[in-house]
Order: sequence, then C-alpha cells, then structure tokens
Amino acid sequence: MFNNKFSSSLLEKAVMEISRLPGIGSKTALRLALHLLRQEEDRVEALAESLVEMRRGVHYCQVCYNICDDDRCEICSNPTRDSSLVCVVENVQDVMAIENTMQYRGLYHVLGGVISPMDGIGPSDLQIESLVERVNRGGVEEVILALSPTMEGDTTNYYIYRKLEDTGVKVTVIARGIAQNDELQYTDEVTLGRALAGRVPFGNS
Amino acid sequence: MFNNKFSSSLLEKAVMEISRLPGIGSKTALRLALHLLRQEEDRVEALAESLVEMRRGVHYCQVCYNICDDDRCEICSNPTRDSSLVCVVENVQDVMAIENTMQYRGLYHVLGGVISPMDGIGPSDLQIESLVERVNRGGVEEVILALSPTMEGDTTNYYIYRKLEDTGVKVTVIARGIAQNDELQYTDEVTLGRALAGRVPFGNS
Repeated sequence: MFNNKFSSSLLEKAVMEISRLPGIGSKTALRLALHLLRQEEDRVEALAESLVEMRRGVHYCQVCYNICDDDRCEICSNPTRDSSLVCVVENVQDVMAIENTMQYRGLYHVLGGVISPMDGIGPSDLQIESLVERVNRGGVEEVILALSPTMEGDTTNYYIYRKLEDTGVKVTVIARGIAQNDELQYTDEVTLGRALAGRVPFGNS
Repeated sequence: MFNNKFSSSLLEKAVMEISRLPGIGSKTALRLALHLLRQEEDRVEALAESLVEMRRGVHYCQVCYNICDDDRCEICSNPTRDSSLVCVVENVQDVMAIENTMQYRGLYHVLGGVISPMDGIGPSDLQIESLVERVNRGGVEEVILALSPTMEGDTTNYYIYRKLEDTGVKVTVIARGIAQNDELQYTDEVTLGRALAGRVPFGNS
C-alpha cells in the first residue's frame, strides 16, 4: 500500500537494503534512512564500518561454537571455569542469558539452532556431532540440556540424549516449572503438571 | 536489565552502533547483528555501502528542499507540473504520501519540521525564509498549507500565513473533516465540529 515514489535513487537503495533486515518494513527503513541522513557523515561511516568489520572479523570458538574474536572464546579459555560441565544452548543470546544469572561456572556448547523439520533444519545443520566428539575426547562429566521447552527443543534434547547414551556421560535437563512471579491460576496445564511432578523437598529449590 | 556480556568485541561494537538508531533497543540490535553475521559478506558490504553512499551523495533540492540526487529534484524539474501551486509539507514522507494520491500536479516546499518550542525548533530552523523568497521571486499563485493538524502544525501554518500576508499570494489549507471509513460516533469533537463548519454543497466533495 505504501507505494514509495523516491525522489532520490541513493535514498531508495539504502531503504531497500535496510528493509531486507528481519522485522524491518519499508516505513521503518525509510525512517531509519532519513535519520541517518540527518547525522554527521562520520557517524554513518562508523555504523557501516562496524557492520562490515563484525562480519569479516568474528570467529566461532573451535570448542563451543560461541561467537568470539579469536579461535577460542573467553569462556573456554578461562581456566577458572569448570570444564567438566557443558551446557548445551541454542544460540549466542542463550549464552548471554545464562551468563547474566551468574549462577553457572561451567562451559557451553552452542548448537546454532534446534531440529526443526518445518524449517528444514536437521541434526547435521547443528553442532551436535561436534558435541559428541567433545564428550568422547574426555574431561566432560555432565552435559546440561538448556534448550527452550518447545516441540523442537524437546526433539533436539531427545536426539542429543540418544547420541550421548553410549558415552556414559551424565545428561541432565534444566528444571521446568512455574516461573518466578507467575500466577498459578494462569499457568498452563502442561507447565503446572511438570511443576507438580518435578517437586523437590522444601528448602532445596 | 539486559546486561549483555558479549563474547566478541566486534559484535559488541556493531550492536552498540545499531542501537543508536531511533526505536531500536539493545535486544533488537543484537538480533539484527546476529542476522547480519549469518549473511554473506557481500550482502553486509552492500548494506554498509548503501548507507555511506546515501549520506555522502544525497542533495537537497535548491528550490523545494526535497531530498534528491542533484541540485534540483525530479518534481521541480518536471515541466509538466504546475509551478504556480506550492504545497508546504513538513518532511519527505509527506511529499511521498501526497504523490501517492496522484491528485496533485503542483510543486512542494519541504519545511524540514514544524515550529516546536518544546523541541527547540524555531522558524529559523525551518525552510520558511526560503519559501517567502520563493514567493517573492514571482510565479507562485497559491500556497497550500499541508501540515499535520496538531498544535505545532497549526502554529507553523499561522506563522507562514503572517509571513506571506504582504506578498499577496493566495494561502489555502488542506480540508479538515472526518476521515474516510471513520465512524461518526467515535470521531473526536474537534474534528466533528470542524467537519460541520467546513461543510460543502453535496456533490462537490
């Protein structure tokens, strides 16, 4: 409906490029482009350079596949972290979320997604083989599955569990239950059922 | 609350730059950065280049202050447009909106904003002086005020009207009334009052 008639081909090209970004429509792209037009030239250059430098310079950690500036991420190369614990997560944001809890001192393994036949993502598209190899190399005592509690996450959990069965490593999954500050009466029945089934002695939680 | 612990300084820098954009918070910036990381390098370069080239290359039309690639925009240099009509708008998006109606064959004058003391925008920050000069140069028969019907728009309309009083040019303002498909019972009283006061003979609207 918003059939833009651009008065500048340079503006049109920039809007087209910006609107390729996920979740950014043509109106937002135009608003962002016009904002950049009002900025100093070196501000726009700094933004553009940061994008290109990031794309060119970012590496994936050769141990856990987290994003980093070198071949090994800060977490994997930190000798004070417990290398016998490996937490399996879907993506980089999940690593950040767990790091923000400041409750975890082990290492990670970033899958890069979850098994999702609907989106054409199979086990071979994810860092599952590298996880099995990592466990086989020894030193890992426990693999903690910390994927989202969705159909895809559960499928991936089960697939990894089966893949790790022969290695003898302990496989655990993060607790499922009602979230802090959630109201019991509005909690869905699956969550509430799991919370009941997974009850722990009072004082332990 | 989302106290990001970035595992890559390049990623952190890109996220910081992206989150400077208006309406884009740190979570969205991270999502966009991670999206770009998954794209081909030349795609990211194309985006970055389009931004820098736009900022460096875009001009403002020396007649109407619309954004364009040269010193004069396509509308102003189109001999089939009616140069005796000048429509005063706030910004480039408004030019596009009016062009999309395909009802207007005159020229424009882009103010670059409206008078807003709260935001520190006074008449001298806008292209009002250049409008008066343009009218004084002759050839303009009617100036159509097409600013948004807000306090700031109305103030700016009145300021321009006073500035143009001595030139003898005809000054009109776009009609205010109830919008197409709006329900009468939910229309605010100011709009409804104006719609009544501005009634026209049936068949003319």
